[in-house]
Amino acid sequence: MTERPDVDELTPPDRTLMGPGPSDVHPRVLQAMSTPLVGHLDPSFIEIMDDVQDLLRYTFQTDNQWTIPVSGTGSAAMETAVGNLVEPDDNVLLRTSAYWGDRMAQMARRVGGNVVDLDVSPHAPVDPEDVKDSFAQNDIDVFGFCHADTTTGIRQTNVPELTAIARDHDAYTIMDCVTSLGGVEVQVDEWGVDAAYSANQKCLSSPPGTSPLTMSDRAMEKVLNRDSPTKSWYLDLSLLEGYWGSDRSYHHTAPITNVYALYEALRLVAEEGIENRWERHRNVAGKLKAGLQDLGLEMFAEDEHWLHSLNAVKVPDGVDDKEVIAYLLEEYDLEIASGLGALDGDIWRIGCMGYSAREKNVEYVLSCLSDALEQQGYDVNSSETANVSPMSN
Amino acid sequence: MTERPDVDELTPPDRTLMGPGPSDVHPRVLQAMSTPLVGHLDPSFIEIMDDVQDLLRYTFQTDNQWTIPVSGTGSAAMETAVGNLVEPDDNVLLRTSAYWGDRMAQMARRVGGNVVDLDVSPHAPVDPEDVKDSFAQNDIDVFGFCHADTTTGIRQTNVPELTAIARDHDAYTIMDCVTSLGGVEVQVDEWGVDAAYSANQKCLSSPPGTSPLTMSDRAMEKVLNRDSPTKSWYLDLSLLEGYWGSDRSYHHTAPITNVYALYEALRLVAEEGIENRWERHRNVAGKLKAGLQDLGLEMFAEDEHWLHSLNAVKVPDGVDDKEVIAYLLEEYDLEIASGLGALDGDIWRIGCMGYSAREKNVEYVLSCLSDALEQQGYDVNSSETANVSPMSN
Repeated sequence: MTERPDVDELTPPDRTLMGPGPSDVHPRVLQAMSTPLVGHLDPSFIEIMDDVQDLLRYTFQTDNQWTIPVSGTGSAAMETAVGNLVEPDDNVLLRTSAYWGDRMAQMARRVGGNVVDLDVSPHAPVDPEDVKDSFAQNDIDVFGFCHADTTTGIRQTNVPELTAIARDHDAYTIMDCVTSLGGVEVQVDEWGVDAAYSANQKCLSSPPGTSPLTMSDRAMEKVLNRDSPTKSWYLDLSLLEGYWGSDRSYHHTAPITNVYALYEALRLVAEEGIENRWERHRNVAGKLKAGLQDLGLEMFAEDEHWLHSLNAVKVPDGVDDKEVIAYLLEEYDLEIASGLGALDGDIWRIGCMGYSAREKNVEYVLSCLSDALEQQGYDVNSSETANVSPMSN
Repeated sequence: MTERPDVDELTPPDRTLMGPGPSDVHPRVLQAMSTPLVGHLDPSFIEIMDDVQDLLRYTFQTDNQWTIPVSGTGSAAMETAVGNLVEPDDNVLLRTSAYWGDRMAQMARRVGGNVVDLDVSPHAPVDPEDVKDSFAQNDIDVFGFCHADTTTGIRQTNVPELTAIARDHDAYTIMDCVTSLGGVEVQVDEWGVDAAYSANQKCLSSPPGTSPLTMSDRAMEKVLNRDSPTKSWYLDLSLLEGYWGSDRSYHHTAPITNVYALYEALRLVAEEGIENRWERHRNVAGKLKAGLQDLGLEMFAEDEHWLHSLNAVKVPDGVDDKEVIAYLLEEYDLEIASGLGALDGDIWRIGCMGYSAREKNVEYVLSCLSDALEQQGYDVNSSETANVSPMSN
């Protein structure tokens, strides 16, 4: 017999989540998670699925029929988009120097795509001129880019220009809007995006477990006319059509409770109104940004490309970024994050997403961070711009 | 603007789940689902992950280091096992006439495996002699089989004989124990299984969203020494090692809340004791089976291969299986299921899993089914064995 482990009650600490995700989950969404289950083929669940699809369309600002929650976390939605749209020997244009571009490239190569590198800096928005050059020099089939980069806090502000280049070359676009959907303006139809995916646990403030995906009819036509099936059975959209389409036949068991949670999280989006929600994120994050600058800290992103939902802040000289993170977690039950990949050690990442995007949370972050910086010997008040104590705001 | 949908509060009906899964979720598990989240890299979550792994090892009866919840529902765990263990040009022995064998075959082919068909009836356990013959005639690398078949209610009772054949030929085994883990005896180490996967929403009575997987060291050696990477990045065990192994580095965001739920569900398994739990399922299902036979119904599986957790019952002549299912759902909020695939119309599938495996539920099923059969003009009392009304038990 394998021994019976002795395990305590589940008593995780009560964190305030101001990192790059998950964000704090709204109490109504937490409550939805404890709703007793119905079967994944129950007629009442079919209605919930229909409503979730409608709510997702509203949130993505799209009429795409093909708008579903994928049965996995954000990277599963990324893999669904890449794995279905990219066929063997397709040329896939990606900025591989960027964290998410590299991840998409790994996925594209595994399913037989040829990755064409968009060889530009990962720490600035993509310049449409560079994209034009790449399209001129290569026969690109699919172009993937990131709308809201969680690693840099940079927002791609000219998406319609990027998609227009791709359309001019009969190519398809995949947009990563993991960190923007539901918090920062996303306009799938108006921007002419073919495939867009996101995650629950960022600006939607729903627990990770499903992940929003939308595909244009044009993109689905490519998917449904593939010469060879996708490499993944679980994430094959042509099979998922049987479940999410009109047949409602069994493919795999949907994560029922996570769909409940997403339903409630999206209902909160609809109640607030998507435009009001974007505005709230802009306003609350604006206070966060101003407060960080008052502490003498410098934002990583230029103002015009600043991503409201993810505030990347440069770590001042002489301050240990990891010690600050650990101090905030231990002393204040507050989560912020370090840089990821190449930016590890250079920045902190402070989220302002969904239910976490509240003034209360912003004040808490600024106050705790001020203390943490002082612990590191950093003189908050001596900084040029720090004339106002964040607690007196 | 895409229009804002008007969606009601989440008020699903209060079902009693006695189908092939999901089963009723224990109140303690539902409560765990509403626990506020911590980050997926939070030190406190790392402890929870460790505990979940220990609890899964106990439930699988294995010392396998590589025992994790996959971040998707059951078919994702199946695809993880198949997609990692099967390399291009591997010969994979599967009973493709069986529902789950066919699904594994679709997955194996997509990742480049050559499927060798174990050409036997899908409606009986696999005979080791047939497996021996297949191994003698083909150079098999991987052999997949189903321990507990949700489509037929048949239990494979001689697993150690099957794995011994594979080992004699230096092949690897994959065991589907989706419908047995936590309810019907599973002994991964004692039975010599290389890879076994399951689902939360059956005998573990946790909502779908993660799915248990265990891999032997021998199997992981094959996985970690593949010539080419797996086709899926999301389900690549060599990358998941970074997160679930000692590094605890970011791969993808785990479905935190589903891990909480699984933690609590597995704690319930440990509290009850795995052997007691198997015995409870046997006893409660025994009452269900006796009651069904008292109604004059015939089990699909032979007694010696009867799967306690899934009772497949033949639909009597003149009775419309779908009408009975709809009647039970509408009149009694009770879910049972029809046959899947080839058995559609021939059987009902009545689960007896996890928190649903209670005498109260069994009595309810028998009483409601008795009424539903009478509605169909089936004379419950005239059946030869139906001397006792199920309600008077």
